[in-house]
Parts: sequence; C-alpha cells; structure tokens
Amino acid sequence: MGKVVFDISVSLDGFVAGPNQTLDEPLGEGGELLHEWAFATKGFRERHGESGGETNVDSEVVEEWLDNTFATVMGRRMFSGGEGPWEDDPNADAWWGDDPPFHHPVFVLTHHAREPVPKRGGTTFTFVTDGIEAALEQARAAAGGKDVGVGGGAIVAQQYLKAGLLDDVRLHLVPVLLGDGVRLFENHVADTAPKLERTRVIESPTGVTHLEYRVVK
Amino acid sequence: MGKVVFDISVSLDGFVAGPNQTLDEPLGEGGELLHEWAFATKGFRERHGESGGETNVDSEVVEEWLDNTFATVMGRRMFSGGEGPWEDDPNADAWWGDDPPFHHPVFVLTHHAREPVPKRGGTTFTFVTDGIEAALEQARAAAGGKDVGVGGGAIVAQQYLKAGLLDDVRLHLVPVLLGDGVRLFENHVADTAPKLERTRVIESPTGVTHLEYRVVK
Repeated sequence: MGKVVFDISVSLDGFVAGPNQTLDEPLGEGGELLHEWAFATKGFRERHGESGGETNVDSEVVEEWLDNTFATVMGRRMFSGGEGPWEDDPNADAWWGDDPPFHHPVFVLTHHAREPVPKRGGTTFTFVTDGIEAALEQARAAAGGKDVGVGGGAIVAQQYLKAGLLDDVRLHLVPVLLGDGVRLFENHVADTAPKLERTRVIESPTGVTHLEYRVVK
Repeated sequence: MGKVVFDISVSLDGFVAGPNQTLDEPLGEGGELLHEWAFATKGFRERHGESGGETNVDSEVVEEWLDNTFATVMGRRMFSGGEGPWEDDPNADAWWGDDPPFHHPVFVLTHHAREPVPKRGGTTFTFVTDGIEAALEQARAAAGGKDVGVGGGAIVAQQYLKAGLLDDVRLHLVPVLLGDGVRLFENHVADTAPKLERTRVIESPTGVTHLEYRVVK
C-alpha cells in the first residue's frame, strides 16, 4: 500500500503561509517566498508546460514528489484559496485555474456536499463531507496502491497527524523569516504527539533544506 | 573580531522550551527532550567532569561550540530559570548550581542592578542594566576577540537578531513535537526580518539536524 505523505514548504520561523491571506494573495504576505525554490525548478516548470528552470537537487525533490503522488487530500480553505467570505462561493475553485498543478484526483474536505469539478490535465476536485478518514479512503482507492499526498492546509495536516494516518512528513525548510502567518504546527496537543524519525536530509545549494521524517507507529 | 552566535535546540514545531516552566522544571514540560542529544555526548560530559558519552557528530558540534565561546549574554529569565515570582529572589541563581556549564563570563540583561555572582569553574554572572548593546560590548571585551554566545531565551535572541547584532544562528532541530511552550520566533516583525544564508547542515545519526545560518548584513 502506498504511503500517506504530507509535503510542505515552511519558513525558518515555522510558517507555511504569510499573514493576511486574500484571494489575490492566497499564500499571504511573503508566502510566495516559501515556494520560489520549487517554482524555479525544471521539474516543476515541465509539468506546467513551461521550458527552462533549474536542474538541481530541488528539481529532483519536486520530480520525486510529482512522480509519486497519485491522489491528494486537501481542506476546503486550501481549495478555495484561504479563509474568507468567498469560501462558499460556487466559483471558489477559480484560483486553481483551468489546469491545476495536480494532474490527479483531489479530495476536498468540506461540510457542504457538491458535485465534482473536473478540470483539464487530469485534476478532478471531489468533495467529501464525511471526514478525514473517508477522504483518505477515497484517495487511497484513486491512487491505486501508490502514494497519497495530504496537501494541507496546516490544520488538515495536523488532523491527519493526530489521527495517526500520516506515514511521512516532508518539510522543505526555507531560510526566510515571515514573522507572522499560518503556523505549520499550531494546535498540536503534546499528549498525542507522534514520534518522528528522520529518514533523509537533502541540502540544496539554494539554501533550502529538505527534511523527511517517518511517523513511528 | 569574533562572531556573535545564537545557538539553540528547537523542536520540529518550533519550541525552545515546553509549557509550564517552573523552578523545578525550568525547561518546561518535555523541554528536556530538546537537550538529550547534547547531554548524551562525550564532549558535554567531559566539560562537566563526567566520563563516558557518545563520540559522534553531536559531540563534535557540542565541542566546537564549547571550545569557541568565550563569553555569553543571556536574559534575566534564563538566568533565573524561567518566568515566575522567583525572578527577583536574590537566590534566583540557585538553579545553575555551584559550577555552571559556561566556564566563562556571563552577562545577564536585567533592570535591577546587582553585584556580580562568581561561581566555580570560571563562570561569573555580571548584571547589565543598560541594554543589549552594552551587554554585548562587555561580552565582546571579555571574549577578547573570540566568539560571544547569545544564550537566550528566545526573546533576547530575537532582540539581538532584530538589532542586526547576530552573525550566526545555529539551530539544532530535534525530531520531537512539544505542542506548546516557548517559541523560538514569536515576536518577530516581518518588516525587519533579516536575510539568512544557510552555511552548514550536519546530519546526526541521532535524528538531530544541525543547521547553521549566517545573518546577511
């Protein structure tokens, strides 16, 4: 059976998005800085129909992730581009565009049942109203024995971590300080904290440190 | 001139001490977990008159730090073992014992003038009431051109970072989740965030990742 992997870029001060998220700036102020390393790679650009890009270990990390993820689970706020009054808008998927970067089935955790939204390039957003385990079950089925990605946001990832449903946590530690925003680990309760075993460190010349941890079960 | 180095162990969720710090548990609940890697090393044990201990990269990291730090600056709360009613107690230094681990001059930032407290083994606590720059100046003089350590706590380190007075930030990233406690970066303002350049990654078999960043000036 494939792994359930939470893969995310995080600032040195522990933020996965900047403050003041809006539809125009869904990653919050400064949040783009967390993803520049990935956007700059050949691996990322190729999958988005663009030429050029860096061929370095960052690109290998991106390619490995893209090549091995066959379904994604995400929260409603990630789907709708942050928290705000637009969340319930039927066009809330607009910010992902016509050709989202997933190219595989995406299961969106929500309280509002809704018809699936097919997009170009293999991405279909399917809405799941009966909780994180049900969403993961559907994602596992869609991935056909390969890896499932937990896309975020942070709160959804924490729920999966607490429930013991994550196998790997991959952090891309970016050497910036955002100062404020959405914390990767905000609501975690120490009593239920899982043990993590570091399985890999990849040091990129761009200053990003790619860290992989296995959740000990 | 020597460097000004902030060297600290931090949990994967960004805490440098656990919650509920008391005099009996100055590192807070679970806070000891952040320092086990260092306490277990031969390098640390030797300097504390104990035999045994691990001879691994963790030990090399500890030895390098101990060998190169010739004066330390710390906040009053670190001196007195956390925040609490005992802070103003004249015996508030009790938790460091008779032979503190520094073995060099320590300058304590405080608002209350006080006579220096000499301890065994070369550690003298000197109290500085006129701010972080004055404390650093005294520490630099005491270090005689060698490195000065900023001991913490987190708030003191943030003040030095914001003031542009730190040269290096060394984080020992420990694969535990504390869930709550004292955050390494809590009050940082993004507008004044310094740029950091990663200069070193040391991967220890114990699961700790030693990360060194240079503050770009």
